[in-house]
Amino acid sequence: MAELGARVWLVPGGRIPFSDTAAERELSGGTAAEPEFTSFDQLCVLNTTDRTAELSLDFYYEDTDPVGPYRLVVDARRIRHVRINDLIDPEAIRLDRPYGCLVRSPVPVVVQFLRQDTRLPDTVALTGLMAYPAD
Amino acid sequence: MAELGARVWLVPGGRIPFSDTAAERELSGGTAAEPEFTSFDQLCVLNTTDRTAELSLDFYYEDTDPVGPYRLVVDARRIRHVRINDLIDPEAIRLDRPYGCLVRSPVPVVVQFLRQDTRLPDTVALTGLMAYPAD
Amino acid sequence: MAELGARVWLVPGGRIPFSDTAAERELSGGTAAEPEFTSFDQLCVLNTTDRTAELSLDFYYEDTDPVGPYRLVVDARRIRHVRINDLIDPEAIRLDRPYGCLVRSPVPVVVQFLRQDTRLPDTVALTGLMAYPAD
Amino acid sequence: MAELGARVWLVPGGRIPFSDTAAERELSGGTAAEPEFTSFDQLCVLNTTDRTAELSLDFYYEDTDPVGPYRLVVDARRIRHVRINDLIDPEAIRLDRPYGCLVRSPVPVVVQFLRQDTRLPDTVALTGLMAYPAD
Repeated sequence: MAELGARVWLVPGGRIPFSDTAAERELSGGTAAEPEFTSFDQLCVLNTTDRTAELSLDFYYEDTDPVGPYRLVVDARRIRHVRINDLIDPEAIRLDRPYGCLVRSPVPVVVQFLRQDTRLPDTVALTGLMAYPAD
Repeated sequence: MAELGARVWLVPGGRIPFSDTAAERELSGGTAAEPEFTSFDQLCVLNTTDRTAELSLDFYYEDTDPVGPYRLVVDARRIRHVRINDLIDPEAIRLDRPYGCLVRSPVPVVVQFLRQDTRLPDTVALTGLMAYPAD
Repeated sequence: MAELGARVWLVPGGRIPFSDTAAERELSGGTAAEPEFTSFDQLCVLNTTDRTAELSLDFYYEDTDPVGPYRLVVDARRIRHVRINDLIDPEAIRLDRPYGCLVRSPVPVVVQFLRQDTRLPDTVALTGLMAYPAD
Repeated sequence: MAELGARVWLVPGGRIPFSDTAAERELSGGTAAEPEFTSFDQLCVLNTTDRTAELSLDFYYEDTDPVGPYRLVVDARRIRHVRINDLIDPEAIRLDRPYGCLVRSPVPVVVQFLRQDTRLPDTVALTGLMAYPAD
């Protein structure tokens, strides 16, 4: 099968919503369990190729130089959904700080962005979009 | 008319939200009727051609080999909106399990993804995006 | 300026959510005013050219032949946001009926889709996506 | 590194939701703080190049000539997230007025659109999409 996707993807509009999850739990009477109902930004990667995709991520900010590379491995013929909150090396991505993300892969992949926003109690907002393929 | 669309489409960010619909009904006092207010992931396909589109779907996972093909027929000059929950052959797509989807069609079609999330009572979240066309 | 956009656009995933707006008003104690808080699907068209865009829309369904053309005029250097509910000639688009839409324009335009879902009282869900450009 | 993105981007479906934020605060018992929970439309720009991007924005309306250019600077190797509400020169963008936006940049950038809708108390709706790249 032909290889599907692109090797460079960009997301300009990142910002992990900050949830005061303790307050959330109290107000919702326990309905909203952790970590299912925390707020998060997520990258979803689909690697249909027969080779491991060792992705390199760089994060861009409003007021400082880009930080990276972050490493993310997506095995051959696998997906990987990673919460931006979980990226900690070389440094954690801070909550409520606007960022953009550049994803580079040695093999073609497809990259989607998803945000779940549960900052207000007992409500969920979602938005997803395909990242922009640049090659 | 020229044929419109592409023959290969990909969605990296699938995951059918799990709704405890019994709890949902109780808490909402019957406002939220089934199956209108269950959570679902959906593929929406538009076939403007004069030929039947016999689609082949493969599902990719984080920890196991892809599963497929699933078969989905979209008649000539028709749409089809299918809930991922309803795909059961060769096996059902489990709730809350991250997946990616590869759609192949012998004729050009257009594929959109839609998620409705009603895990919390009395609230609806929606997100939709065009799948990524790869040919 | 070069002409911006495409002449053919497609949206596979239409379905105008049905709001029982009378019930909605009662439950929300009057907070949700009409028609700001009804449910709708919307097409948003941007025509940056110096010529009027006389668009032709065809609607595709699951179980019957396409219906159209619907006519929609977007003046030169103007936008137009039209609720699908307001398209009535040659026939109204029924609520809760899945559809796909094909938009054709004699001049390049850009087409976006937006859904507002207010079926449940006191909550708003939104999803938007760019239509698929096919030329 | 090759330059990533496009020099012309379009968003057809703008409209800043009008929040009666005083009513919002009262009804939410102070949960929803300003300006985190106001309604807004936002442009998110990622400039991965080594040159400053001096963007030019034009706003298109339903019933009058386009207004612009608005100027927006995105430094080299930086992002910028700007609320449409904050664009005031040559004139403020009015709330609840449908608009489309044309973004031009002398260097390649990537542009995303995001809407947060908090018109109803204690609920957040989000929708995001990549702008349409036209060159």
